[in-house]
Amino acid sequence: MTQSTLPAPDLIPVDILRTVVDGRWARVRQETREQLAATDLRTDPDHSSAEYRAHITDALKVLTSSGRPLTGFDPAVGGEGDVGGVVTAFSMLAYGDLSLLVKAGVQWGLFGGAVQVLGTERHHEQYLRRIIDGELLGCFAMTEAGHGSDVQHLHTTATYDPASHEFVVHTPYPQARKTYIGNAARDGRMAVVFAQLITGGRSRGVHAFLVPLRDADGNPVPGVTIGDDGRKAGLNGVDNGRLSFERVRIPRTHLLNRFADVAEDGTYSSPIENETARFFTMLGTLVRGRISVAGGAGGAAQKALALAVRFGERRRQFSNPSTGEEIAVLDYLAHQRKLLPALATTFALHFTQDDLVARMHAIQAPGAEPAGAREQRTLEQAAAGIKAIATWHATHTIQTCREACGGAGYLEENLLPALKADTDVFTTFEGDNTVLLQLLAKELLADYGRTVKKGNPLAIAPLVGRQLAGVLAERTGAASLLRRLPSRGLDLTDRARRRELLRVRREDTLATAIRNLAPAMRRGNDEFAVFNSAQDLLLVAARAHVDVMVEQSFADALERIDDAGVRALLERVHDLHVLTVIDRERAWYLETGRLTAAESRSIRPLVNELCAELRPYARTLVDAFGIPENRLACPMLDDEAWAPAPATPAEPVTDQVETG
Amino acid sequence: MTQSTLPAPDLIPVDILRTVVDGRWARVRQETREQLAATDLRTDPDHSSAEYRAHITDALKVLTSSGRPLTGFDPAVGGEGDVGGVVTAFSMLAYGDLSLLVKAGVQWGLFGGAVQVLGTERHHEQYLRRIIDGELLGCFAMTEAGHGSDVQHLHTTATYDPASHEFVVHTPYPQARKTYIGNAARDGRMAVVFAQLITGGRSRGVHAFLVPLRDADGNPVPGVTIGDDGRKAGLNGVDNGRLSFERVRIPRTHLLNRFADVAEDGTYSSPIENETARFFTMLGTLVRGRISVAGGAGGAAQKALALAVRFGERRRQFSNPSTGEEIAVLDYLAHQRKLLPALATTFALHFTQDDLVARMHAIQAPGAEPAGAREQRTLEQAAAGIKAIATWHATHTIQTCREACGGAGYLEENLLPALKADTDVFTTFEGDNTVLLQLLAKELLADYGRTVKKGNPLAIAPLVGRQLAGVLAERTGAASLLRRLPSRGLDLTDRARRRELLRVRREDTLATAIRNLAPAMRRGNDEFAVFNSAQDLLLVAARAHVDVMVEQSFADALERIDDAGVRALLERVHDLHVLTVIDRERAWYLETGRLTAAESRSIRPLVNELCAELRPYARTLVDAFGIPENRLACPMLDDEAWAPAPATPAEPVTDQVETG
Repeated sequence: MTQSTLPAPDLIPVDILRTVVDGRWARVRQETREQLAATDLRTDPDHSSAEYRAHITDALKVLTSSGRPLTGFDPAVGGEGDVGGVVTAFSMLAYGDLSLLVKAGVQWGLFGGAVQVLGTERHHEQYLRRIIDGELLGCFAMTEAGHGSDVQHLHTTATYDPASHEFVVHTPYPQARKTYIGNAARDGRMAVVFAQLITGGRSRGVHAFLVPLRDADGNPVPGVTIGDDGRKAGLNGVDNGRLSFERVRIPRTHLLNRFADVAEDGTYSSPIENETARFFTMLGTLVRGRISVAGGAGGAAQKALALAVRFGERRRQFSNPSTGEEIAVLDYLAHQRKLLPALATTFALHFTQDDLVARMHAIQAPGAEPAGAREQRTLEQAAAGIKAIATWHATHTIQTCREACGGAGYLEENLLPALKADTDVFTTFEGDNTVLLQLLAKELLADYGRTVKKGNPLAIAPLVGRQLAGVLAERTGAASLLRRLPSRGLDLTDRARRRELLRVRREDTLATAIRNLAPAMRRGNDEFAVFNSAQDLLLVAARAHVDVMVEQSFADALERIDDAGVRALLERVHDLHVLTVIDRERAWYLETGRLTAAESRSIRPLVNELCAELRPYARTLVDAFGIPENRLACPMLDDEAWAPAPATPAEPVTDQVETG
Repeated sequence: MTQSTLPAPDLIPVDILRTVVDGRWARVRQETREQLAATDLRTDPDHSSAEYRAHITDALKVLTSSGRPLTGFDPAVGGEGDVGGVVTAFSMLAYGDLSLLVKAGVQWGLFGGAVQVLGTERHHEQYLRRIIDGELLGCFAMTEAGHGSDVQHLHTTATYDPASHEFVVHTPYPQARKTYIGNAARDGRMAVVFAQLITGGRSRGVHAFLVPLRDADGNPVPGVTIGDDGRKAGLNGVDNGRLSFERVRIPRTHLLNRFADVAEDGTYSSPIENETARFFTMLGTLVRGRISVAGGAGGAAQKALALAVRFGERRRQFSNPSTGEEIAVLDYLAHQRKLLPALATTFALHFTQDDLVARMHAIQAPGAEPAGAREQRTLEQAAAGIKAIATWHATHTIQTCREACGGAGYLEENLLPALKADTDVFTTFEGDNTVLLQLLAKELLADYGRTVKKGNPLAIAPLVGRQLAGVLAERTGAASLLRRLPSRGLDLTDRARRRELLRVRREDTLATAIRNLAPAMRRGNDEFAVFNSAQDLLLVAARAHVDVMVEQSFADALERIDDAGVRALLERVHDLHVLTVIDRERAWYLETGRLTAAESRSIRPLVNELCAELRPYARTLVDAFGIPENRLACPMLDDEAWAPAPATPAEPVTDQVETG
């Protein structure tokens, strides 16, 4: 491989590696680390949900006192507007208790965030400080039992009554009840409720309203019925619950009216003409939630890998028949292939996440230029795709790490079970992953549609084959690539060509999806049938799109590294990540002639070589995340438990015994 | 596709389908169903471990009173010797509480089973009835903290003292403590302890001993220290714990002496000369544990799919733009591709499991012909491979089902979280899956080694290329196949050719692994390095071997079906299973030229077609497992909760609004 020299493991400058990993919000990371190191809120895993919830509510107060939540809000309410910093700090809470992470996300990210971005001055002045200080705990009541992903068609109503200048919030039937709502079952005093706004007898689409839930004594206010979602697979420190409204009256001013308002006489107005555009503008301001979940998933995957790598270095099993010495399980190739490619992708997603946070910060921080529609949409696409890929990656990686630690990994005391159980819902909340990837795919279709022909993305389906490929290539600057491919003799050790392989896959999978839409259209199917016929291909195209984004972020990060040793190490990690992606998709490369059989077969030994090469650096790499030691301490990593066997263990005799 | 006609869903004779699925132990299945239907031991998921353990100990008594555990033991103690029946019934406990399944497995399968098969008449007379009746609860103390997979090198010792005619059982250092031992933390009065037997100053290898743990009052006996493994990811109704022995003295007769004995003067004797052979003979009798775990995993996967399919039929999300009607999520292609291939493989593994149970029954049931070494070894290989594949399949399938039910799937009340958490350890207990597959691969190497050259399996490595392929082909009757392949234009709709694809992969992947061992040997590496260099390929070969077994069992089951409609339906399920395997491995088929690019690309639409064709039968298929309704009842499937939306939901207006 044409690559720079890799220094010995003990010559890697760990501080520089840490600086590279920490990126733009290094200061926030360091402060959060110190805070996590100074507190250990770990509790008995055998507690009841009631005890756990009380514990997490207390922990939320500790977090409030750190001042961190305030920094994310606007200077107008005393904050620093450090949107990126607060999301970064949030992600790092995944090193500790994930119930606290989610509870904090509900309180300040979703509830406080909605008041900040959907509300106006009157809401900010009245509520934000109390929300930030944890005096007013609240909910983000969007999801309904019957409508999770399809938020535009929620059934809760908020009907304006011009006689009393009030909205009447109502749950028309059981499936319209709000559910899975954090802070609802125990703590929430108020909720941002998403409901169909009806005025003058017409529905104006989904809007957000401030609805009181409980009185000063904590009892539900009249008309509000609060249920408990009960025990969950994980996150049992969060009080998820259900909310139903029986014609609950709230003042007109409780409409969060940044994007639409209702006058006293019931006249509806909005700066955004088109209803769907208005709906997506409102939702778009909430992109922070998805980015935060992706970050939390990353932190959890990092912690799981740190635990499994440390265990894999200590744990020995089976002797080498030639030497009699027991072998560390991380020296087994199969074990390396479980953990090291997952570690490489975790690094890739870490740099991707940092880029995503920076892009969000550039748009959302106070004083930022208002984002153009295209800029906003691109960020939303990236957030949707990366949230899906990062959370699935965390689910798979934590599962793998649990198994890599065997029985020890199944005990709560060794921290992996909570990581698995708590993050499991990340793949389906804040947008179901499959739905998010489909959304991304449709956006990609629409983008191409705009290039070719304005209007319905399906209009481009008839453009098949060469013509389409040409258009795509032109648009993406990949024309020269497409002309050159399929070539033979691709050098898989060449970094630039590997990047091209990811890029050409992005273009081709989308083209294939479009080509497959065409026959379904010609058969006169309805719109659902047309899209459904190629749904699997659309999801493949979306994933390929994310693969390119992730590689790009990692490559950009490499460019920023001055230290030769650190750069050489992370280049190997980058190599392993990209080869893992190509390996996963090599059937596609073979089917399309982008790789020859010989090239494809060469991937396995390359991955194995990289695993062997990175094995001695595994500990350095997981240490680079800087997870506080007190958050990794657990019995399976207790050095005293690993005292060696006595000098003369009972060695079995090998000669023959008397036979009876 | 050349295939028989598929009747309409309502014309499938459900009773005949059930009979086919129930197989040989249909009567036991029906009885177990009735028992599960008559009791519902479901408990508050928010209980403490102490409460849950007490509940499961009570449930164990209910199980005792059913008489089922007795049926599995020998007629000499009042049983029926229905080994197959009892393992089948055990698997079905997975429809209920998996803590009860594991507790029962520990008590009667592992503890009672060890006394039955490793002990002799004196142990049977003294203990078996009390074990069967649940009066004497006990442990199977094999695993040590430092040695889980490598059982041959356990460090607990049992040293014979000829002066007192006692064994002295001792834990020499902390990592030699027994851990993850079911029944230890709360209930166990006695344990079968595996320890290095030392007599006359020499170690004779691992043997099993009966060691009392607690006195009549439940307090640990002198010298025995009992610890608690505490809260686990799941299975918290089972009291897993830790056992350490400080020179605990037990009578000489507490050695389970079927395969080896120590005379009063300390003379060691055994009918099996070779120590390693003796060790594996003892372990081999315990094959039932692995088969039982595979069965439990199957039951859990079936239940998860039954829940997810029923939910997928009810749950609707997003409207069809052309009709305005909301679409059931199971009508989405992506949803079908998540659930239906998993369902097909679950059927395949169900029939495989039944075959495995029948083979075990044939060897182990009272009055059976003593198994030849080869027959025994083949059963152990199959059990190892199928345990690994079945438990990984369950882990992935339950995860998928959880995600397919979104937020509802994350609530304990909807049963999926417990299925996931409780079965998660199945992949690493009763043999770590990776270790089991490696074991299988080494056995396959050894088998080929015996064909070619007696002795060390590595001796065959130099036999590379054509010669080896010829030998393999000869041995397996696949010679004609190998001559014919690679061919072009394979018809993927041809069932027989698809089977050939699985078989040729089995032969070729093993040959590839062997070819890759050769260069490592030539480089003069030690034995660990040689095997490690091809560990990934060995695991691939083992998996390919299991794929063939599984397909064969499914194909054999199809042969036994008389009813044309049922046969047509299960043929489609078989098709989907096999295509899913080929799809998963299509990169390999392309790399080796076994499939052309066009053939490979044709798999996707075939899978989609089969998904669409089977979609209307999904409910019939999951119902065929006959899971009692009370074990599936949960709020997300409550029909009342799915009352339709009111006739006039608030429909958003689509015209323009005033803009402000």
